[in-house]
Amino acid sequence: MSVPTAAILVIGDEILSGKTEDQNALLLISQLRELGVALRRIAVIPDDIDEVAAAVRDLSARFNHVFTSGGVGPTHDDVTIIGIARAFDKSIVRHPDLERRIISFFGEDADESRLRMADVPEGSELIDSPELRWPMLACKNVYILPGVPEHFRRKFMAIRERFRVAPFFARAIYTLEDEFDLAENLRTVADSHPQVAIGSYPSFSSKEYRVKLTLESKDADAIEAAVKELMAVLDREKFVRSE
Amino acid sequence: MSVPTAAILVIGDEILSGKTEDQNALLLISQLRELGVALRRIAVIPDDIDEVAAAVRDLSARFNHVFTSGGVGPTHDDVTIIGIARAFDKSIVRHPDLERRIISFFGEDADESRLRMADVPEGSELIDSPELRWPMLACKNVYILPGVPEHFRRKFMAIRERFRVAPFFARAIYTLEDEFDLAENLRTVADSHPQVAIGSYPSFSSKEYRVKLTLESKDADAIEAAVKELMAVLDREKFVRSE
Repeated sequence: MSVPTAAILVIGDEILSGKTEDQNALLLISQLRELGVALRRIAVIPDDIDEVAAAVRDLSARFNHVFTSGGVGPTHDDVTIIGIARAFDKSIVRHPDLERRIISFFGEDADESRLRMADVPEGSELIDSPELRWPMLACKNVYILPGVPEHFRRKFMAIRERFRVAPFFARAIYTLEDEFDLAENLRTVADSHPQVAIGSYPSFSSKEYRVKLTLESKDADAIEAAVKELMAVLDREKFVRSE
Repeated sequence: MSVPTAAILVIGDEILSGKTEDQNALLLISQLRELGVALRRIAVIPDDIDEVAAAVRDLSARFNHVFTSGGVGPTHDDVTIIGIARAFDKSIVRHPDLERRIISFFGEDADESRLRMADVPEGSELIDSPELRWPMLACKNVYILPGVPEHFRRKFMAIRERFRVAPFFARAIYTLEDEFDLAENLRTVADSHPQVAIGSYPSFSSKEYRVKLTLESKDADAIEAAVKELMAVLDREKFVRSE
């Protein structure tokens, strides 16, 4: 079962310098999970053309979907469009449909600074949706989203269903066993169930359990088989609960 | 003025799948800022040896300091140590001092699973501090921190002062001008003050201002010169306040 993969590229000095706390990657983490897409990478980089170009080139080649956040306004620190164009060796062209919409929206205020918002990497696709005043912009497998969280959310929500695939299944087992004592058995079960991602998370503050084991897969049968095998090797007296 | 740079590498399927919300990168963002270190990259990657190796190799070469978070426990999904060893073509060796401490702490419970916690990339450095029961581990310029937030925080706080350099200076200007109308003047001021990082952040929800302009530099005089030049080109009637 091939699972589509995704990466999030957050572009913004304001995140790295702590002026603004990221909300957009956080939203996409939960959204992509719910859509059945495997998020494999989050990168936060500065407002720098070469950094954007290098990151987009790398992520676009390695993952099915790339979502960028930020850097799409009209000022000197907005370098996402030019960075994406450079990543794909595309020139930047004024998109006639976007230009028309800007003129219709701004009327006689549609000066060069505003019209420049119609400049996109050559070959970009506009994705329209009834919920959006402005269309989403995509270049190859890169979806270009704004940094302002309300706008980011509205745009992503308008296009989210195009990414939906089969869901993930998940189980969790809580135990009072120590991770050191679990490690060997856990490795054996993990090795014999490559389709199931098994995670082990110790808690040093919970009084209820010492380790939370998580099992995830797109294959519900595979997950149940792994749970069964795991339950057989866990210490029954230290078992807390499963969910 | 050369500013030391840093990267944060968060290693953990649990972050990418949304089971756990990152707190460690968030802590380091504010800490590094306060210490005068320029954070240039955050990457979140899965529990995968090759991914860790590739990321560590890249980040370690490009930035002065690299901080890893997570993947240092005893279970199969803890691959940070082996990934870092692979990044630097080092073998993994049992560190005699760590081994001695594990034996002293666990007594006769110090089995192979626990002793394995003394296995580190060859040439790693232990950093001791009175506040720490276990020393910090560093390999070249890579500081290896645990994923559990309480432990991450305690370890980083114990070693933070070794990274302190001259502070950043920052100013902010709030205006009711539109970003489209500001863009050209802003670019001119930014171009003539390369030592000052100027950011422009629109707000669509604030009633007080439309754009927040930020100026940051290690050079207090450079920042004041840029503020002065900026104030001269801003529309006085739309100026809100500065801080």
